Amino acid sequence: MIKNISRAVIKRLPKYHRYLTELLDRDIDKISSSELSQHIGFTASQIRQDFNHFGGFGQQGYGYNVKSLLNEISLILGLNKSHNTIIIGAGNLGHALANSSSFNKYGFELRALFDINEKLIGTHINGIEVLSFDEISDFIKENQIDIAYICTAVSSAQSVANVLVENGIKGIWNFALVDLEVPKDVIVEDVHLIDNLCTISYFLKN
Amino acid sequence: MIKNISRAVIKRLPKYHRYLTELLDRDIDKISSSELSQHIGFTASQIRQDFNHFGGFGQQGYGYNVKSLLNEISLILGLNKSHNTIIIGAGNLGHALANSSSFNKYGFELRALFDINEKLIGTHINGIEVLSFDEISDFIKENQIDIAYICTAVSSAQSVANVLVENGIKGIWNFALVDLEVPKDVIVEDVHLIDNLCTISYFLKN
Repeated sequence: MIKNISRAVIKRLPKYHRYLTELLDRDIDKISSSELSQHIGFTASQIRQDFNHFGGFGQQGYGYNVKSLLNEISLILGLNKSHNTIIIGAGNLGHALANSSSFNKYGFELRALFDINEKLIGTHINGIEVLSFDEISDFIKENQIDIAYICTAVSSAQSVANVLVENGIKGIWNFALVDLEVPKDVIVEDVHLIDNLCTISYFLKN
Repeated sequence: MIKNISRAVIKRLPKYHRYLTELLDRDIDKISSSELSQHIGFTASQIRQDFNHFGGFGQQGYGYNVKSLLNEISLILGLNKSHNTIIIGAGNLGHALANSSSFNKYGFELRALFDINEKLIGTHINGIEVLSFDEISDFIKENQIDIAYICTAVSSAQSVANVLVENGIKGIWNFALVDLEVPKDVIVEDVHLIDNLCTISYFLKN
């Protein structure tokens, strides 16, 4: 059932997850699609369509049970299990990501950073050690790493990705401004920050 | 003409810009939509559809002139003029963004960072000074700032956005994991990093 769901629907799921978590924190148990629409900014029709991809989740006219809806979306996103992650590149961006507390809350547990800079190797960021890139193969195998964040310079990103793929990593979060070539079974999510700025520039102009 | 273009089309323009810049660097003058398709990964039909929103840019069967196509897309994105930018929040993420060299290349010129932490105020990051948040109103007016990057904690982001809006900022790049409420004429681009990780988690599972 889940195979044919469009990327656009998948991309909206984390936002549903976030809003439902907030509703639960505010002790709201039930919510209709139109109330949810007011909070989240998608139309009620959009919300019902999205949810119908997964069997609907609730009865129309009665509303959704917030807790079970949140559980269902967590399951769909695979957030019921934790993920072991590593960062390659312990520069400013690597630091910023290592210091982010929100990833941990979602079960993305940072196990190590890697760098080639001797000055950084052996230091700790937010309690996590920076290791030599030479150690990455053994580390990935011994620690069942499934997601790697590439925070290197553009010039190193593809060769880093190759090493990750050789060591069985299936999820790459790429911050380098380059489109990585990887086998089809490897998932790459790009954060090309300049693209956001270009979008802002476009809308400022128009 | 440009008013009804979908957000999805706009979001693809920076990628066209990037690839065309690379082609130009490699002295490639002409390219067909099918050759461009092989480079960029969108279908040739998608590319022609996208370009038709802006009048087409070239003759089918003859191919596009890379330089003039790049110029047209730069104009559409408003990249022919530079933008004055500021960062609010001089923590790790603010540091990482201040140190990024790619933004400058596109004409996004960082003028200052702002923070409330006395230890950071007066320091410099990549040659740019960290100023007290108290000075932000005067600074925005005197330096014709048009885009602000919010790199603060979630708890401060909305109040920072309010100050920015009061001072006439129309473009906000928001890294805090909160959906900001702003007037309709203010553009907000969110970078909600956890959403990317959730997407990776989904595809790893499915």
